[in-house]
Amino acid sequence: MSNISLEQAAALLKSWDYIQIVCHRLPDGDALGSSAALGRALLSLGKHVMFRCANAVPEKFMYLFETVPFDAFAPQHIVTVDVADRFLLGALEPLADSVDLAIDHHATHRDFAKEQWVDGGAAACCMMIAKLISALGAEITPEIADALYTGIATDTGCFRYSNVRPETHRIAAELIEHGAHTAQINNALFETKSRAAIRLETRIYSDMEFFFDGKCAMICLTNDLIRETGATESDLDGISALIRQVEGVLCGVTIRQQGENEYKVSFRTVDPVDGAAIAAKFGGGGHKFAAGCTLKTNLETAKERLIAACGEALKSCGQT
Amino acid sequence: MSNISLEQAAALLKSWDYIQIVCHRLPDGDALGSSAALGRALLSLGKHVMFRCANAVPEKFMYLFETVPFDAFAPQHIVTVDVADRFLLGALEPLADSVDLAIDHHATHRDFAKEQWVDGGAAACCMMIAKLISALGAEITPEIADALYTGIATDTGCFRYSNVRPETHRIAAELIEHGAHTAQINNALFETKSRAAIRLETRIYSDMEFFFDGKCAMICLTNDLIRETGATESDLDGISALIRQVEGVLCGVTIRQQGENEYKVSFRTVDPVDGAAIAAKFGGGGHKFAAGCTLKTNLETAKERLIAACGEALKSCGQT
Repeated sequence: MSNISLEQAAALLKSWDYIQIVCHRLPDGDALGSSAALGRALLSLGKHVMFRCANAVPEKFMYLFETVPFDAFAPQHIVTVDVADRFLLGALEPLADSVDLAIDHHATHRDFAKEQWVDGGAAACCMMIAKLISALGAEITPEIADALYTGIATDTGCFRYSNVRPETHRIAAELIEHGAHTAQINNALFETKSRAAIRLETRIYSDMEFFFDGKCAMICLTNDLIRETGATESDLDGISALIRQVEGVLCGVTIRQQGENEYKVSFRTVDPVDGAAIAAKFGGGGHKFAAGCTLKTNLETAKERLIAACGEALKSCGQT
Repeated sequence: MSNISLEQAAALLKSWDYIQIVCHRLPDGDALGSSAALGRALLSLGKHVMFRCANAVPEKFMYLFETVPFDAFAPQHIVTVDVADRFLLGALEPLADSVDLAIDHHATHRDFAKEQWVDGGAAACCMMIAKLISALGAEITPEIADALYTGIATDTGCFRYSNVRPETHRIAAELIEHGAHTAQINNALFETKSRAAIRLETRIYSDMEFFFDGKCAMICLTNDLIRETGATESDLDGISALIRQVEGVLCGVTIRQQGENEYKVSFRTVDPVDGAAIAAKFGGGGHKFAAGCTLKTNLETAKERLIAACGEALKSCGQT
C-alpha cells in the first residue's frame, strides 16, 4: 500500500473528529510521547480525542498525561502512532482492521491501516509528530514540547545513537524554546536508579559469567534473584544492554526464568557476531544485534546449549 | 580583573604565535576537546602550537590528538582552557603567572591569567571554543568537530543535564554537519565499561553510605579500593555522576584519596541543593550541580565535616 505524505496526513486529521489514538503494547517513551503530543494538539484544535493502549501507562511516564482532557466515546476514526505491525497492538489487535491512519517511523512497518504515513528515517515517531503538529497549525505548548522531547530522548538514547541527525538536535533546540523541561525528563528517564535496580545491577555484575576469553558474557535472571533484589519489570529493561556494554564482550546472553523449566533468552551482540543466527538455532529470531528465543529445559542444560551455540557463532566469524 | 570579549580573545590569538595550550590536571573530555580543537584551529592558521597537561591523556581520549602536528618550543604565549583556578594546573601550577589568556566556562573562575574570557553560562568550554574558532575564521574540520562534540557531550552528560540550552543542540547539529562521528564518540565515552569499572561500580554500590533519609549519599574512593579493583582514572570519571543517579539522592559526595591525609571531594547535586555553596565552605567551587574541593585531614574528620555541610545545605533549602 502506498505511503501518504505529511501534508496528506495533516489534511486527514483536520477533516476528522472523535479520534482515538492507539499506541503499541508495553508502551515506551516514544509511543506515549507521540500519543500525548498528538492528542493534545488535536484537542487544541477543538477535536474530541481519546487514547488507548493494551497496557497501562508506566508510572514514570504518567506526567505525559496529566491534565489531558481525553474523552471516552465511540470513535469515528482510529490513528496508531509508533505501531510497526498489527500484532504490536497487543490485546487491541482486533482494532487493526479499523485503523484509518498509521503514523510510524519503523522502516520495517507492515501495513495494516487504511492509510499510512511511514518515515523509516525518522529517529523517533515524535520527530514525525513534531512536523505534523506544525502542519496542523497547532501550537507547541510546554506540555506538547515535553511529550515530543520524551519520545526523541527515548529513541535516541538521549542523542547517543547513530540515528541522530542534525535535524534531531534542531528540533530538540526548538522544544526547549517551547518550554520542554529537558533536565527533569532526562533525570526521570535516564538518571534515576531505584535502590532495587542498584541491588540488581550489583548482583548481575557479581554473578555474570564469562566464556571464550571474555567474548561471551552470560547472566541468569532467576525468579529468586528478581525477588531477592525487589526489581520490577522496568528495572529489568536495561539488563541485556548492560551486558553488551562490558569491554570485550561480543555476545551478551541474558537468560530470564519464565517457569520451572522455561527460559526466555535474549542475545545482544557486537559486529560481526550474528545474534539472530544464534537465536534461530533455538527456534527464535530478531535483528542481527538484538535477538531472542525460548528454551524449555532445566537451567543447566539451557546454559550448556547456549554456551555451545555462542562458541560456534564466535568461531564462525573467526573470533575464537 | 575584567573579562574580555570573544572578539578580543580572537584578536589576541590572531596576533600571537608560538602558543602553548594548557588544560587542567586529570583532564576530561571538555579539557582535552577544547585543547585539541583550539590547537588544530590555530595550526590551520599557520601558528606554532604545543599542548601541555600535568597528567597524561587517558587512552579513551587519544583519538583527539591523532595526527595533530603539535610542536615543542619555548612558548611566547600561554593559553589555558577549562582551568577554573591556578591550582587545577596541577604540577604545572608554576606556569600560572605566565598565562596570557584563560578561556573558561566556570562561573566560579578565579583569576590567575593576564586576560580572561570567562562565560559561566556556557555548558562546556568547547561551546566557547566553537564560537572562538568561527571568530578566528578557521574551518571546522571533521577532527575539530569531533573534539568540540567530545567536550560538549562530556560536560552535558550527552545532553542530559540542566546546562543544555537551545544553542547547545544547535551547535551539536552543526558539528554533525561538519563531520563529527557522534555515535562512535558516544559509544567510547558512555557505552563501554571495562571489567575494572564494573568491579569498581559493584564495590561502590555496596560501600555507598546514605545520610539524611537517603537524600545524601557518600562514597570514598580510597587508594586501596582503586588498587583492589584495578580501576584507572578514566574508570573513576563517571563515579560522581553515578551516585547522584540513586533514587532520592539530592546530594552525592565522592571522596577521592589523594595522599595520606588529603582528599579531593566532588559534589553532584539535584535542584534545589547548591553543590558550589557546599564546596565553597571548604575553599572549593564549581557549578551549582557539580562542584569540588580538597580537604587536608584524615578520612574520618573529612567525612564528619562533609556530612555536616551537606546536612546544612539540605536544611537551608527545606529538605531536612
